[in-house]
Amino acid sequence: MKALFINCTLKRAPNFSNTEALAKKAAVQLQENGFETEIIRLNDFTVLTGNTSDEGDGDEWPLILEKIKSCNIFVIATPIWMGHLASTAQKVIERLDAIFRDEDLIDPKNGQFMPYNKVAGCLITGNEDGAHSCAAQVLWSLQEVGFTIPPNANAYWVGVAGGEKDYVEAGGERYLYTNKSLRYMTGNLAWFAKLLARHPIATDLLAAENKAKAESDKEN
Amino acid sequence: MKALFINCTLKRAPNFSNTEALAKKAAVQLQENGFETEIIRLNDFTVLTGNTSDEGDGDEWPLILEKIKSCNIFVIATPIWMGHLASTAQKVIERLDAIFRDEDLIDPKNGQFMPYNKVAGCLITGNEDGAHSCAAQVLWSLQEVGFTIPPNANAYWVGVAGGEKDYVEAGGERYLYTNKSLRYMTGNLAWFAKLLARHPIATDLLAAENKAKAESDKEN
Amino acid sequence: MKALFINCTLKRAPNFSNTEALAKKAAVQLQENGFETEIIRLNDFTVLTGNTSDEGDGDEWPLILEKIKSCNIFVIATPIWMGHLASTAQKVIERLDAIFRDEDLIDPKNGQFMPYNKVAGCLITGNEDGAHSCAAQVLWSLQEVGFTIPPNANAYWVGVAGGEKDYVEAGGERYLYTNKSLRYMTGNLAWFAKLLARHPIATDLLAAENKAKAESDKEN
Amino acid sequence: MKALFINCTLKRAPNFSNTEALAKKAAVQLQENGFETEIIRLNDFTVLTGNTSDEGDGDEWPLILEKIKSCNIFVIATPIWMGHLASTAQKVIERLDAIFRDEDLIDPKNGQFMPYNKVAGCLITGNEDGAHSCAAQVLWSLQEVGFTIPPNANAYWVGVAGGEKDYVEAGGERYLYTNKSLRYMTGNLAWFAKLLARHPIATDLLAAENKAKAESDKEN
Repeated sequence: MKALFINCTLKRAPNFSNTEALAKKAAVQLQENGFETEIIRLNDFTVLTGNTSDEGDGDEWPLILEKIKSCNIFVIATPIWMGHLASTAQKVIERLDAIFRDEDLIDPKNGQFMPYNKVAGCLITGNEDGAHSCAAQVLWSLQEVGFTIPPNANAYWVGVAGGEKDYVEAGGERYLYTNKSLRYMTGNLAWFAKLLARHPIATDLLAAENKAKAESDKEN
Repeated sequence: MKALFINCTLKRAPNFSNTEALAKKAAVQLQENGFETEIIRLNDFTVLTGNTSDEGDGDEWPLILEKIKSCNIFVIATPIWMGHLASTAQKVIERLDAIFRDEDLIDPKNGQFMPYNKVAGCLITGNEDGAHSCAAQVLWSLQEVGFTIPPNANAYWVGVAGGEKDYVEAGGERYLYTNKSLRYMTGNLAWFAKLLARHPIATDLLAAENKAKAESDKEN
Repeated sequence: MKALFINCTLKRAPNFSNTEALAKKAAVQLQENGFETEIIRLNDFTVLTGNTSDEGDGDEWPLILEKIKSCNIFVIATPIWMGHLASTAQKVIERLDAIFRDEDLIDPKNGQFMPYNKVAGCLITGNEDGAHSCAAQVLWSLQEVGFTIPPNANAYWVGVAGGEKDYVEAGGERYLYTNKSLRYMTGNLAWFAKLLARHPIATDLLAAENKAKAESDKEN
Repeated sequence: MKALFINCTLKRAPNFSNTEALAKKAAVQLQENGFETEIIRLNDFTVLTGNTSDEGDGDEWPLILEKIKSCNIFVIATPIWMGHLASTAQKVIERLDAIFRDEDLIDPKNGQFMPYNKVAGCLITGNEDGAHSCAAQVLWSLQEVGFTIPPNANAYWVGVAGGEKDYVEAGGERYLYTNKSLRYMTGNLAWFAKLLARHPIATDLLAAENKAKAESDKEN
């Protein structure tokens, strides 16, 4: 089974990424739980803005989408900028929006979106403030496109108000709270991924839609 | 198995609540899935502001907490005010914050919080705009205290920009999009609640915490 | 000229409020700038949930509304709970929503809402994370009902990720970043309040609405 | 006097942008108020991710920054994706974060950030839901870096829940609510820009910082 981390740092390789440092800790823990892990940096790919699965000439999103299709656990790792998730993380979410309209990403048998039976979490780093609202946006988006969100599916590190040091520089790797949250998260992600592998979600979204049609006379 | 809806309308009984109208539709669908359902209106209770499980004299939160303890599915239903979840919904979330500190709400065997093995969703209504950010805040908070969030665990109705009509008046009960989302939500809530009843989460949070302690030397 | 602070702590008097400690610092600075200041604690009043200016029997919001009407500077001071502004702060915002519909709060000459020519800011405290998104919600709401938001109109203190100490206990009163932000904020609030007292906003919202009507054929 | 609109559509030219259609209406109104206007599309420029004023080789942000420096009114116009402001808009905000650290963007006399004496607003379009939280994030970020936010400084159009039509296709250009909000916004932006041109902000941020230093012994 596979876990995919997408590191949405604004930095381009080979610059050091604090967000990646946190992702690496999580990856090791998932390996201990029996998962193959891969961490990719969004900025290593040319990903065009858009909301389809392939924005054409030069767009490397399709490469990333294949990786998402084949993973069991998907984790968005993002820094915070101005209290907000990074533009790079939002770009990932925008590209996932295609799931609602792309026939290749919907199961013809039951209407389930591609991420059904996959679980998701998120990791947030910043020098100061913003982790909770970033996590809320990321996790909401991921459940919306079909991922399952286990309890305690996020971990973060940020400094005190106006803090200027980043995760590694501040010794965030040795903070009990962050380390504890991270272990809760990886434990639950692993447990749920294995559970869903054995017990795939049975909800028939096509049948649900048909019932909805029968009780509706207004389309938007 | 039981589903509990908490209707966080700002209105006091016997005033009509649009949010309750949406909750009732969801309740019927969960009944069809074999669940006992109960809808309570927060404003029917005297709930003090605070972040403990019992704020003392006159506080009726303990009555609600008992209902939450005994449910398998928990749904917060809230209107939107100024683009934001209702103060009443936020009050519920604040009271649930006690879960992190209240020994009665933590399993001594494995450290799991009371909502582990329960699933959660949310319902949002408003005359205009705000549902996604309200849902994000609610679902994030619920996963944080230990609920599992299935895919497509929220449904909403709002009108067009500046809309002045509410859910029922606008005929929102016959909108395909809202009805479809609602069926996805209730289908998944039911399926996951049954799954977790058969396969309780095995993650040992106490063991996780001990591992975290071994790799940490900074407490916050 | 007057500055009104509304302290939205969840605590009831006589319990100590960290949020009030920050508000007091701001008040002293506005006094140095020539303003009379008043700090009220929302929980000292019986304020009913709702979105009108008077929710009837026992509702003490009208007392607070009078104070808002007579101030030049209005500051919402709120703690963070679960990454979110306190339910008490959201309740204040909900009650201010009445401004859009209450004829007593709209100038018949130019359609301006009551808060026009008043300036607003916010103060946020918490043990950890959430200040930026709370401030965003508060300031957006306040500009929406008619307050002017000067640059750097917010200040906050929170601890590191998972921090357990509050503002005063953690020595937050001696943090340079928070103190600097606070002085920026009070300086700009004072300067803009005086500017608008001498130069009241001339925008004619009734004329604007008439132009809008002439170019519109769809009401929501 | 100049007004600059930055259209953060995900689309690349020559594709039609609904967000631009709303920006054009606002621009005409500001022209009527005596402003020169310019609308640029972020996606027409190569803007690298980052948080400095110049991210090096191939980065065209410096061209945009010059335009921002020379405007009196700055408006971010953004679509909503998954309930969130577009990655392109967030990228603009990230690049503006440089203001806090870039000496060229801070007035040596008084410490004021470059956007002091400029006013800002935002425009939001989407097929459904999310405008309020997007506006909150944008306006908060803009006040944080030094712009003044007049009352009613945002306008938006979105459709009903799950709506599939965009602003122009849905006839949003003829919606009273959106048109009214837009006229409030442009009226106030114009009035405040002229006011601040005559009465530049006098707050001395260097003096404020020195006072803060005298009362602080903890740096972050």
